Amino acid sequence: MIMSRIEAPRDEVTGNLVDRLLAGLPAEAVLTDPDVTASYANDMASFCPAGAPAVVVLPRTVEQVQHVMRTAAELRVPVVPQGARTGLSGGANATDDCIVLSLTKMDRILEISPVERIAVVEPGVINATLSRAVNEHGLYYPPDPSSWEMCTIGGNIGTASGGLCCVKYGVTAEYVLGLDVVLADGRLMSTGKRTAKGVAGYDLTRLFVGSEGSLGIVVKATLALRPQPPQQLVLAAEFASAAAACDAVCRIMEGGHVPSLLELMDRTTVKAVNAIANMGLPETTEALLLAAFDTPDPAADLAAVGALCEAAGATQVVPADDAAESELLLQARRLSLTALEAVKGTTMIDDVCVPRSRLGDMLEGVERIAGKYDLTIGVCAHAGDGNTHPTVCFDAADPDESRRARESFDEIMALGLELGGTITGEHGVGVLKKEWLARELGPVGVEMQRQIKQVFDPLGLLNPGKLF
Amino acid sequence: MIMSRIEAPRDEVTGNLVDRLLAGLPAEAVLTDPDVTASYANDMASFCPAGAPAVVVLPRTVEQVQHVMRTAAELRVPVVPQGARTGLSGGANATDDCIVLSLTKMDRILEISPVERIAVVEPGVINATLSRAVNEHGLYYPPDPSSWEMCTIGGNIGTASGGLCCVKYGVTAEYVLGLDVVLADGRLMSTGKRTAKGVAGYDLTRLFVGSEGSLGIVVKATLALRPQPPQQLVLAAEFASAAAACDAVCRIMEGGHVPSLLELMDRTTVKAVNAIANMGLPETTEALLLAAFDTPDPAADLAAVGALCEAAGATQVVPADDAAESELLLQARRLSLTALEAVKGTTMIDDVCVPRSRLGDMLEGVERIAGKYDLTIGVCAHAGDGNTHPTVCFDAADPDESRRARESFDEIMALGLELGGTITGEHGVGVLKKEWLARELGPVGVEMQRQIKQVFDPLGLLNPGKLF
Repeated sequence: MIMSRIEAPRDEVTGNLVDRLLAGLPAEAVLTDPDVTASYANDMASFCPAGAPAVVVLPRTVEQVQHVMRTAAELRVPVVPQGARTGLSGGANATDDCIVLSLTKMDRILEISPVERIAVVEPGVINATLSRAVNEHGLYYPPDPSSWEMCTIGGNIGTASGGLCCVKYGVTAEYVLGLDVVLADGRLMSTGKRTAKGVAGYDLTRLFVGSEGSLGIVVKATLALRPQPPQQLVLAAEFASAAAACDAVCRIMEGGHVPSLLELMDRTTVKAVNAIANMGLPETTEALLLAAFDTPDPAADLAAVGALCEAAGATQVVPADDAAESELLLQARRLSLTALEAVKGTTMIDDVCVPRSRLGDMLEGVERIAGKYDLTIGVCAHAGDGNTHPTVCFDAADPDESRRARESFDEIMALGLELGGTITGEHGVGVLKKEWLARELGPVGVEMQRQIKQVFDPLGLLNPGKLF
Repeated sequence: MIMSRIEAPRDEVTGNLVDRLLAGLPAEAVLTDPDVTASYANDMASFCPAGAPAVVVLPRTVEQVQHVMRTAAELRVPVVPQGARTGLSGGANATDDCIVLSLTKMDRILEISPVERIAVVEPGVINATLSRAVNEHGLYYPPDPSSWEMCTIGGNIGTASGGLCCVKYGVTAEYVLGLDVVLADGRLMSTGKRTAKGVAGYDLTRLFVGSEGSLGIVVKATLALRPQPPQQLVLAAEFASAAAACDAVCRIMEGGHVPSLLELMDRTTVKAVNAIANMGLPETTEALLLAAFDTPDPAADLAAVGALCEAAGATQVVPADDAAESELLLQARRLSLTALEAVKGTTMIDDVCVPRSRLGDMLEGVERIAGKYDLTIGVCAHAGDGNTHPTVCFDAADPDESRRARESFDEIMALGLELGGTITGEHGVGVLKKEWLARELGPVGVEMQRQIKQVFDPLGLLNPGKLF
């Protein structure tokens, strides 16, 4: 397929490109076999076009990244930076004839300091690897996307990813103190600080967090750490309606509680989990809420939150007595996406975040949309943040169902905006939502964002076709 | 003085400017009396040049701000945005013939939501006013600069200001979720979100925080709030050397403690406080450390931290038993700046933030610099953050002492950079440190920052001469 697409002159261009790359990279860091490079074409999103890379490079040093960017700029070749490609919006998808710049080999943890409460890492470090490494020093790196055993810190920075912990500990952005970035022309720029505070000049660090590889290549990150909190204790509460569960979420947050996790699974998700595992969840459950506390006295906090759940109409409240029981209660949540995938073989995961007080309206709206399009749509939500993941289940081999899936996915984003929310709480825009970004930001916002892109990437070579 | 400076043609220009402003602003919102406008020339920084404004405007609505900016752009008149002018780096100082755009009349709290844990405010709201208003809802707005009874939220956003609470709760930046900004050409742009999470596009919100009015005029801010924590309990520890106190700071942070305040006063500051108030501080104190906890069991936390202070060589450890005693212990810290001002009549307050582990080197270096320049320099520090405020005391009527004060101030910044720190932890760059910004950011960083400025302010009218 690639052979038929690339014409002879293109081959010459690619040959020249590879030669130039090899002038500054070892042979094993430059992959050209089309079968191999094709395996780097996609992240984990559905419905996102992906092109065929001309070459995949796997640099191990900052200098090698600089060489790649200089070469790309000279030859006007687009560059698509990649971490572990666990993204859900096509943000890491290749474009035709691009250089895929995989940062996975730059995977060293350079420093962990308990006094400064920082870690300094290369972008290819796996989230779980960092988390475990800092745990050994009594420290905690909170951001915990579902893919944490696979995804890289560089990818997390690119998408500003979140996770279950955000309701208490915030998203990746809050933990990035400073960056080393290779710019589009190959120059190296440092942003931010390694001190606890610092306000010298514009906050370019935060500009790069969530920029999806479109402004520069992150080659080093200084991350803030926290002291390791006590082991969390979990409570599960069942509700006879989604509205009652959402009411409980509002009561908990209004009550001044700070759970370390506050997750919601709707009826569809509970049924899907029951279908693949015997978790003992009653089929009559219309919504399941999971709350956790990692405070000095989590049992007392769980008791208070349990009472609020009951006041909101919970039919059953089950607090865990210990870590093992807590882990059991969380398993249903962890299985949710796998379970929803099993429904029809393919899923499309929305990422709409709404104000907490509109969570009930969001769930009601998703149910309406599922009915309208005759689809199964399960909702897991980081409920404490109002961040819902309506997950459209469909058979990718059925063109009509696929079309309905895509349409319902978009309608869910429209609903999110209507409720005062955002099209993406933590997954990013990528190619999947780029038509939607303009609707959220408005024309002035988009224009300013495009101009900033122009400042950092005047040739338009960095991850083209994403975001805008 | 103003009469002699402005020539006749200039008067015509100013007359035209005032007429144009009055087309969209009520008469009482446009101040032209030179005696009055001159009173808007300065913030609270020493050694910062200030010009004479052509006019001061006090808009009350977004539309009026838009009218001011459109007028300024058409007539090419510089605009200096101002809050309460409590800044310490000259960032709000007028330039000659500028429009001073004071946001102090836009002072409405538009919304406080306990469920969403947000407040929506206009920029002129006083920090203390907001803090007290959210307290009534059981909520907490942490940023607490020393000037909190006077300074505005808009000014806090402009300088990304901090305070005593930052060691646990972070700086202003962490609490700004979204902004409405009037751009240099008068267009209105919304950034960010009012949801707990959101990653749609580049983070323009954070770009504006700390931009010192150089990118646009903040006319509305959505702020994150926290549940009100328990009343904090304070401990004071005296040390026979600054090095021992800094060692205690490192032990406390390395030990995984999360104090709500961790402040240090050096010998010079303790003596200055003794000179103006009878606080019972022993004259032999070489350094005083204040730690506080607002945890569920603050006494237990204070006991643990007290033991660490003793292990580091504290000569006396005094934990407060209740809120009243805690407040007494904090009074010495609150009096510090007033006390240091009383030494010679004028002070220059540095704002160097270093890695915690270099705090001892910083204090030692400041003492060396004080000796070299034959000056009194007292250090208060937000020690838990490594954020020091070396305060140079001098007689502004003595030219030689003034020169030495300025030189020592700069040498302290050089020392901070040498120790891996930043020239400003929370006060901003303004005009006072603009030569130093380039040293910290390096040429590539400065170039990218200038280009971002160019995007938002192509005519260079927004707070010219600041930052760069």
